[in-house]
Amino acid sequence: MSAHPANRDVFVPHAFDEKQIDLGEITMNYVEEGSANNPALLLLPEQTGSWWGYEDAIRLLKDDFHVFAVDMRGQGRSSWTPRRYSLDNFGSDLVRFISLAIGRPVVVSGCSSGGVMAAWLSAFAMPGQIRAAICEDAPLFASELVPSFGHGIRQAAGPMFEMWNRYLGNQWSVGDWEGFIKAVKNSPFAVTAEMFPDPTQPPQFMKEYDPEWARAFFDGTVAVNCPHDVMLAQVKTPVLLTHHQRIEDPDSGILAGAISEPQARHAQRMIQAAGQRCDYQDYPEALHMMHQFDPALFARVVTDWVATLD
Amino acid sequence: MSAHPANRDVFVPHAFDEKQIDLGEITMNYVEEGSANNPALLLLPEQTGSWWGYEDAIRLLKDDFHVFAVDMRGQGRSSWTPRRYSLDNFGSDLVRFISLAIGRPVVVSGCSSGGVMAAWLSAFAMPGQIRAAICEDAPLFASELVPSFGHGIRQAAGPMFEMWNRYLGNQWSVGDWEGFIKAVKNSPFAVTAEMFPDPTQPPQFMKEYDPEWARAFFDGTVAVNCPHDVMLAQVKTPVLLTHHQRIEDPDSGILAGAISEPQARHAQRMIQAAGQRCDYQDYPEALHMMHQFDPALFARVVTDWVATLD
Repeated sequence: MSAHPANRDVFVPHAFDEKQIDLGEITMNYVEEGSANNPALLLLPEQTGSWWGYEDAIRLLKDDFHVFAVDMRGQGRSSWTPRRYSLDNFGSDLVRFISLAIGRPVVVSGCSSGGVMAAWLSAFAMPGQIRAAICEDAPLFASELVPSFGHGIRQAAGPMFEMWNRYLGNQWSVGDWEGFIKAVKNSPFAVTAEMFPDPTQPPQFMKEYDPEWARAFFDGTVAVNCPHDVMLAQVKTPVLLTHHQRIEDPDSGILAGAISEPQARHAQRMIQAAGQRCDYQDYPEALHMMHQFDPALFARVVTDWVATLD
Repeated sequence: MSAHPANRDVFVPHAFDEKQIDLGEITMNYVEEGSANNPALLLLPEQTGSWWGYEDAIRLLKDDFHVFAVDMRGQGRSSWTPRRYSLDNFGSDLVRFISLAIGRPVVVSGCSSGGVMAAWLSAFAMPGQIRAAICEDAPLFASELVPSFGHGIRQAAGPMFEMWNRYLGNQWSVGDWEGFIKAVKNSPFAVTAEMFPDPTQPPQFMKEYDPEWARAFFDGTVAVNCPHDVMLAQVKTPVLLTHHQRIEDPDSGILAGAISEPQARHAQRMIQAAGQRCDYQDYPEALHMMHQFDPALFARVVTDWVATLD
């Protein structure tokens, strides 16, 4: 598959019209819904997620917000950028997008790695760009190779990502779907099996995904120049951390989930120590992508929390 | 020393007035000279160099150009950013600076690592920001840990940088100047000895330098998400490569200089293959920082080449 989205045939129809914007290095694919008279809201998907994971949530949010939802580089119909997947490059895309496409202060809400990016934007965006950040079940610390606090990627999603990258390859250069499904079945990562209920072909979100993302997380290069503790110490806006379903294996102590409770509490303490308001909301029944699987709850969480901002 | 420039006492008087701009993550220190009616020119210093290495060159250029010269993060009176020294973060600062402080298309000229950044901007800046790029004796490939072509940093400036970082420490946390000078004297890097003619105290440019830059280059993290071959393949403007003094040891084949001739030719071929004009000018007598040590020649090189642009 090609790095340029125009050369990849991944389009399927959606409820909202897609637009593209040239950001210099990449072309970013996005949707924009709702009135410009309402507060701006930027939605960032999780790894393997395209903007349309937010489709139902956008239906619920577009009367109260000017909603933007994007495909990150390496995903959806945005450009693929071999060897250039890093938190700082994802963030630089978003800074440009906010500057060129939104043009006013925005509340940003991201899921999983998108939630890490919400924290990144709060810390490192241009002055005045970010009003507040919502980190939806974000793997703070837990998606780093060498976290300053708690367990790292190799004890979390890392081995799963390594498997994805091995069988699919950077830019789908391997593309061994049959071998991939066999490996998934034999792996201890139940979450992976659930993601692929029809083993005969890749689901749409995987077709839109550059498996080099997985390599960058497993290798740790994605965050090597953006340690999460350094980032959290520089947060400049209010932050909401939501924490979803997680299970700790009683024998091994290994956590199935995005982030441990001590890590979430530590992130909260660091943001507060940076002088910012940081709220923690626990949703132990919610799936990782609440925005996709319980859009009504997600829309309520966002709307209610934003209402508490000045 | 403090990461925030306001808390570090590094100011000495200069011929031109300094200004500061808040870019979000960092405060950037810079000067602006010449008329806004003339073409914009952005000057980027080398590693350990502050903007005032261009002081004499600015005197010669300010009648023909609207000149901006900056301190990069980690240098001069710009912010220091522990653990966040990377080509992409340097570049993101400059993209923001061009957007907020220059506001129109600019010719960028950088020396050494600043020259690498000139190529970076040509490849990755926002649409329309860069007219053309001048890479003044830039270590393309040769400053990478794992270059795609030719020798890498460990066979070039790497061991010298490792020595700097060891004795001075990230953010001058070690600061063993006596041990540093002793190590310099015993080292085979003649260039280092020449840089410190008065061994009793650090020269002004070193006081303004965060030695973690050296760590990032020696470790290779500075370019880990920005391989030079990936970058050069995406250059989007005309480029001038200047190539200065270099000596190859006849026994070892080891090069004293910023970049080998085959590497310079390879960079030129890659830029041309990207569909861009790339000129190569050889100045075998010029010192690495021609802009500082032969400002008249530097100003002529810049002015004459820019005159050939449409």
